Amino acid sequence: MELFGKCPFVTTQKLISGKWAILILHHLDGQTKRFGQLQRDLGEITQSTLTKQLRYLEDEGLITRTVYPEVPPRVEYRLTAIGQEFHAVLEQIEVWGGKYIRTHKEGN
Amino acid sequence: MELFGKCPFVTTQKLISGKWAILILHHLDGQTKRFGQLQRDLGEITQSTLTKQLRYLEDEGLITRTVYPEVPPRVEYRLTAIGQEFHAVLEQIEVWGGKYIRTHKEGN
Repeated sequence: MELFGKCPFVTTQKLISGKWAILILHHLDGQTKRFGQLQRDLGEITQSTLTKQLRYLEDEGLITRTVYPEVPPRVEYRLTAIGQEFHAVLEQIEVWGGKYIRTHKEGN
Repeated sequence: MELFGKCPFVTTQKLISGKWAILILHHLDGQTKRFGQLQRDLGEITQSTLTKQLRYLEDEGLITRTVYPEVPPRVEYRLTAIGQEFHAVLEQIEVWGGKYIRTHKEGN
């Protein structure tokens, strides 16, 4: 039975699987950015990977893409309302990730 | 520059990327389980995928694998201390995932 859309864990896991979703949501957290800025923020991401990932997050309703009719056209990305609510997960990821890093450093 | 082990977001994203990590951490949350029980909990996971995923989480220090010298040997999995601390992320994932599901249902 497909649990996407039924189980919150399965649904979230699918939405943020892959190498970049959490990082994109983090870099758009409370901010509006253009493609070029996001690419610089993320460092080692290719243009095509970022394009695909942004389209996926847009299709799933987590970000919006606004094109301004200028020459050249200006394209901006921001989080939707539900995308912005992911902030609460990001906050705990930051806390836990920090603990994990400290634990791992002491262990090695 | 490799940010794994330096940035909490990059580190967490890598640890929970893939289709199963969040679900395994959820099903081991506060519980000790055998391989077969985990496989039943996760439903559509193959034995080799679960074996690989469990070994990865073990190598990264999130779960422990205990083998009891019985015949046949009994093997149990549980979260490490830092693995158990991931509970705070899981809690927010459950809340957010539930909101996303409701939002998505209203939208469709």
